[in-house]
Amino acid sequence: MNLKTNSLLAKTFLLSVLLVSVSACKKETSKETDITTTQDSVAVEAPLASWNEGQNKQTILDYVKDVTTEGSANFVPVADRIATFDNDGTLWSEQPVYFQLFFVMDRIKVLAKDHPEWKDKQPYKSVLENNMPELMKQGKKGLVELLMTTHAGMSSEEFEKTVKDWIATAKHPTKNKPYNQLVFQPMLELINYLKENQFKVFIVSGGGIEFMRPWAEATYGIPKDQIIGSSLKEQFETTNGTTTINKLAELDFYDDKEGKPVAINKFIGRKPVLSAGNSDGDLQMLQYAASNPLKNLEIYIHHTDSIREWSYDRKSPIGTFDKGWDEAKQKGWLVIDMKNDWKVIYPGDK
Amino acid sequence: MNLKTNSLLAKTFLLSVLLVSVSACKKETSKETDITTTQDSVAVEAPLASWNEGQNKQTILDYVKDVTTEGSANFVPVADRIATFDNDGTLWSEQPVYFQLFFVMDRIKVLAKDHPEWKDKQPYKSVLENNMPELMKQGKKGLVELLMTTHAGMSSEEFEKTVKDWIATAKHPTKNKPYNQLVFQPMLELINYLKENQFKVFIVSGGGIEFMRPWAEATYGIPKDQIIGSSLKEQFETTNGTTTINKLAELDFYDDKEGKPVAINKFIGRKPVLSAGNSDGDLQMLQYAASNPLKNLEIYIHHTDSIREWSYDRKSPIGTFDKGWDEAKQKGWLVIDMKNDWKVIYPGDK
Repeated sequence: MNLKTNSLLAKTFLLSVLLVSVSACKKETSKETDITTTQDSVAVEAPLASWNEGQNKQTILDYVKDVTTEGSANFVPVADRIATFDNDGTLWSEQPVYFQLFFVMDRIKVLAKDHPEWKDKQPYKSVLENNMPELMKQGKKGLVELLMTTHAGMSSEEFEKTVKDWIATAKHPTKNKPYNQLVFQPMLELINYLKENQFKVFIVSGGGIEFMRPWAEATYGIPKDQIIGSSLKEQFETTNGTTTINKLAELDFYDDKEGKPVAINKFIGRKPVLSAGNSDGDLQMLQYAASNPLKNLEIYIHHTDSIREWSYDRKSPIGTFDKGWDEAKQKGWLVIDMKNDWKVIYPGDK
Repeated sequence: MNLKTNSLLAKTFLLSVLLVSVSACKKETSKETDITTTQDSVAVEAPLASWNEGQNKQTILDYVKDVTTEGSANFVPVADRIATFDNDGTLWSEQPVYFQLFFVMDRIKVLAKDHPEWKDKQPYKSVLENNMPELMKQGKKGLVELLMTTHAGMSSEEFEKTVKDWIATAKHPTKNKPYNQLVFQPMLELINYLKENQFKVFIVSGGGIEFMRPWAEATYGIPKDQIIGSSLKEQFETTNGTTTINKLAELDFYDDKEGKPVAINKFIGRKPVLSAGNSDGDLQMLQYAASNPLKNLEIYIHHTDSIREWSYDRKSPIGTFDKGWDEAKQKGWLVIDMKNDWKVIYPGDK
């Protein structure tokens, strides 16, 4: 995770163009906003109903039919139907910055009530003042301090509660929607379609494992134990019969790039036959799936819709899609064009 | 894992009484021995058919009925029906030493063909001569070297193949059966009964995660991604389009004692409602399950059958059952008496 913040920092100048939307951020904390279980809205009758007809949709339908039809030369046994999805930029949006960074900044503002000294102390001061250029000047050390302040030094249960409270109340600065409504309706349908065809679907994300699980289970219909991500070290303690798992201020595992296949091997123990991502951070996961001797499908989501979502690829500091795009073209992997392939982006869109 | 070998070493003197059976070990390598999928033999009609009637069996049946009956005050939603089982001594035997140590010694003997120098070099010499007292004199350093020689420096796929070959051919020195036939028939029935009642069943073992998965999935009917254990660090590499996950000679995680709840939180993300173990190494896992606000059941397997299996508890260097036994008595956890509670021990027994 500190590698991610490090990478963010290396792009300070590019990031600063995003400042307008970030500093314009006005958090609403309406208690009425429930956690949306968006998978309920998926139409089970027509698979991939929000996907426009075309080669990309057809390739997915043909692949699933081929590997699930008994007697097919490419039949994949149920136990081997492992699908792995990246989260940021693949299942939900990730602009102008990863949503987990919004969580960090929002948490600092909440915790500031008990820390009056923060208003004069960096890196907290710049967060409280929504001063992103100043925040970026705090360097990796500053961002790691913010991350650890908001993610460590508490029990796993306490952290879960803060995430649940945040996802239920926070809204995206420009989209003005709860973050878990900024998930991609066509991808919810793809997950559902795979589950109906007895695929076991996993999330394999660079995001925090304990940041995702409190909301992603309901949002995507994927059980917590099938949600894999970056983690901090943790420690078990018992005091007078009370058990606690404490989150320590030390990185345990960074689940990005080469880390993704390693995490898949550790958590799942099988190569995926289907894998989807949107950035260079997913390339190794897709290479790993592509090396499966069973028939496999690799999918890249290309953010091409500057109106309904965002448009970015090779030069974006967030969700860089450069080497992955080249390899996808070379190997004939599926590259989904969000603007042209998807009828809607978010659940409830018309 | 090196902690386990360390712990083994600390009990050198106790272990040496076990030497007779170990040095009497004659490996048979009959290729006809298939991997047994013992769960096929579980009778689905009568739950826990191999359990004698009595308070312990009834407590399990009553618990499962209580938490799975809609409208029950203690009803547990399906998503929360998480059951975690230790492996060594809980699902299969673990005497005279953990079976993974037999694997290590057998592998050294296989690899010795390419290492003629080992016959004069410790710690290999003592393994090749079945000289356990001499092996123990090599200390932690020697045992870790053997572990790394047999578990690291190869790809994850290569390691899987060695485990599959071993489990298909090796036999226990005194029981003279393949190791995966030395699993407990009553526990297979318990796993099956829980699965029928929509529990998601996990193994949480101090044994190696990649040592268990190649055979445990078929033997217990538990998917690989629900098998959690100790692990070495691994590294992903691509060379000319070929992907490899290499096993490094460095401990990643030791899944015993305080490690078990930490692993459960990381891999599963939920507290179990049912947890079973047999030794002090499982105590923290059972404490963690016992702290679940949902109605929960903690089960200890007590090895009391010196004729059909082995009899050991407080003073055994392997599977020490001492503090856990005291806490089980104090808290009213279930303590299964293998001799009196189980009609048979192994599949196929009369």
